[in-house]
Amino acid sequence: MNQHTRPTLDDVARAAGVSTATVSRCLNAPDRVIAPTRERVMQAVNALGYTPDFGGRALASGRTNTIGAVIPTMDNAIFARGMQAFQETLSSVGVTLLVASSGYDFDREAEQIRALAGRGADGLLLIGSARPATTYDFLRRRGIPYVLAWSLGDSADHFVGFDNRRAAEALATRVIALGHRDIAMIAGVTAMNDRAADRVEGVRAALRQAGRDPASLPIIEAPYSFEDGSNAFAALMQRVPRPTAVICGNDILAVGAIGRAKALGLRVPDDVSVTGFDNIDIAAFVEPALTTVHVPHRRMGVAAAQQLLQMIAGDTADARVEFGTEIVERGSLAAAPV
Amino acid sequence: MNQHTRPTLDDVARAAGVSTATVSRCLNAPDRVIAPTRERVMQAVNALGYTPDFGGRALASGRTNTIGAVIPTMDNAIFARGMQAFQETLSSVGVTLLVASSGYDFDREAEQIRALAGRGADGLLLIGSARPATTYDFLRRRGIPYVLAWSLGDSADHFVGFDNRRAAEALATRVIALGHRDIAMIAGVTAMNDRAADRVEGVRAALRQAGRDPASLPIIEAPYSFEDGSNAFAALMQRVPRPTAVICGNDILAVGAIGRAKALGLRVPDDVSVTGFDNIDIAAFVEPALTTVHVPHRRMGVAAAQQLLQMIAGDTADARVEFGTEIVERGSLAAAPV
Repeated sequence: MNQHTRPTLDDVARAAGVSTATVSRCLNAPDRVIAPTRERVMQAVNALGYTPDFGGRALASGRTNTIGAVIPTMDNAIFARGMQAFQETLSSVGVTLLVASSGYDFDREAEQIRALAGRGADGLLLIGSARPATTYDFLRRRGIPYVLAWSLGDSADHFVGFDNRRAAEALATRVIALGHRDIAMIAGVTAMNDRAADRVEGVRAALRQAGRDPASLPIIEAPYSFEDGSNAFAALMQRVPRPTAVICGNDILAVGAIGRAKALGLRVPDDVSVTGFDNIDIAAFVEPALTTVHVPHRRMGVAAAQQLLQMIAGDTADARVEFGTEIVERGSLAAAPV
Repeated sequence: MNQHTRPTLDDVARAAGVSTATVSRCLNAPDRVIAPTRERVMQAVNALGYTPDFGGRALASGRTNTIGAVIPTMDNAIFARGMQAFQETLSSVGVTLLVASSGYDFDREAEQIRALAGRGADGLLLIGSARPATTYDFLRRRGIPYVLAWSLGDSADHFVGFDNRRAAEALATRVIALGHRDIAMIAGVTAMNDRAADRVEGVRAALRQAGRDPASLPIIEAPYSFEDGSNAFAALMQRVPRPTAVICGNDILAVGAIGRAKALGLRVPDDVSVTGFDNIDIAAFVEPALTTVHVPHRRMGVAAAQQLLQMIAGDTADARVEFGTEIVERGSLAAAPV
């Protein structure tokens, strides 16, 4: 079944009655070929099932017009909106996006980066800055352009992101201003995730700023799922005194927490306030709606694509594109109960 | 910056002090190399940033150990859980998954299939059966193994899926049995989506079975987003008589509908029942929780991976793997108001 009787450029040229150079042009610079010829060639390409060979095409144009992205998860819509915008921007200039999902696993990410580089990706989008030095060594030795998104690091790499720490600090400062003294946190797993770690640091900074001991903050780290958020919330509600506000490392955890609060007979926000992070679609659709941090996912996706395309084209690109975030106040956060 | 001074197999062999054959074995059949040698070679591979060339590797092993998937969307968790299981199964046998997302666009899907085939994917996972004949022609001419998932078609292709029509018919039959006469539907966009079309057919079949006119079913087609579900629900509530049950083509639309019901001051399920489809995580976390159709996403993902791996290995694989679905009754569906 898997015969791989691969049609050649010659086959296409013969079927379309044009030169192989014209076929190449149709594939690599279609706007330089008049429409009727281009259509005839593309019909032959389709009819024969011709695909430009990676090696040959890369030699001819220096590019494969494919960009790779390795994201931590395809689940839970965290990266979905930003990746959608990233893809649309690439698609509008004829570049195909291939995505791999590492499951927050450094070894798997390294393997996927290697696979994308091996398949000839012109450039890579990676999320955040936490990864082993060996992975960065590989990227630099291969000379493959890459952009780090969803965070801002202090290395010389290209970043398109926002300040996770400062955003979390602003939100926690707001929670403190509402009179909450017993605050707890459900964080993402910080070990492999600089965004999750920075958000914890931000909450601690706000406590310090308010003259409280940051070390006293109860924190449960949980993978990003409704169920994990729900279970972590139940554990925090066992504490004495019971927290009156639970700051969650993302919206998924917060939705899980709100669900559990209801199951426990606790009113949100009268008995306990809950906050999220990301402002994904679901944040507005839970009851009560989530107070959260709005992250400009779409704008980040577009900017990351533009930056990467510039780097691949050999143009100079800004090394850092920083986006602001803002607190979206909805029903899940209120003043501390008196 | 993008110098592409690509290290060769020779470079790795020299750095590790082994033969090129040993390097090849480490990359293609690592279990056939003793651990200390393998580690030395992999250190050299990492240090040099070596990636096996697609062409060379494909020639040596006949495989690239990469599988491609083209899914309609990465958004909204519809395919997330199944794809996660698909990826884990591939990962456990050392195969890397690259995913492209077509945005329910046939032309883009065709282009992504071509890109994945051109990058040397050993096999492809595609969702559903609705796509132009030219795409199927391309797949067959290339002889690339592919599996169609999330639905069951009547072609000779390999399917791993479930009967969308029968599942929707069972759910609608349950809604009718609860005394609802004014039933409406918010469906996915059926034009490019055989799953959405089959679900509409299933609801119509249930009406026919109950002696009602299937043509009288008010249907609004909407893209799969909370907001589209919310807007479609508002439009349906304008009808006279007002529907007492709204069957939604998936859980995302249903969550949007429930949110809008609250905004309109309608109680779910006392004033209006709402049902979903898919049983994604959020279904259990909205208020009231969703009555929906449980789809075995994870088991489908695993089965699709196993089937595709068998086909790539040249083993015979079942042409159809069919999964059952079941109705999950939660708070959003109740008897029609009297």
